[in-house]
Amino acid sequence: MRIAVALKPGHSDPEGETATRLLKELGYKVETVNVSKVYNVFLEARSRKEAVMKAEEMCKRLLANPTKDKYTIVVEEQK
Amino acid sequence: MRIAVALKPGHSDPEGETATRLLKELGYKVETVNVSKVYNVFLEARSRKEAVMKAEEMCKRLLANPTKDKYTIVVEEQK
Repeated sequence: MRIAVALKPGHSDPEGETATRLLKELGYKVETVNVSKVYNVFLEARSRKEAVMKAEEMCKRLLANPTKDKYTIVVEEQK
Repeated sequence: MRIAVALKPGHSDPEGETATRLLKELGYKVETVNVSKVYNVFLEARSRKEAVMKAEEMCKRLLANPTKDKYTIVVEEQK
């Protein structure tokens, strides 16, 4: 499954700001760049529901910072 | 548009390895975790084709390392 972790609106994103500045300096008409991180997690689960539950737990316990991050989870089944 | 930059297969992904180890230590039945980065770029372009061309250029010039990274580009139109 894919877990995308991005900053909540209003939080400063220095990596995105740097990319914006550099791309502008290279001549691109860029408004803004936001950077997020995607974790491709290969996990054993009995059902889609269980996979989503585990992914949410993982975000809360390790992958995301509840103060500043939001996350989205996409489960892909493999047989 | 979204530009996803991930490591080519065979390149070491220390961040993914750390996430794998930590999630295993937390008791999850995780096989592997790969980490990739997504740039959400808001850019002016006259057409979808131009946007893709620019995104490829940006990857080559700044966002991706051709030796170790692969990238995928998804263009979303805004009116």
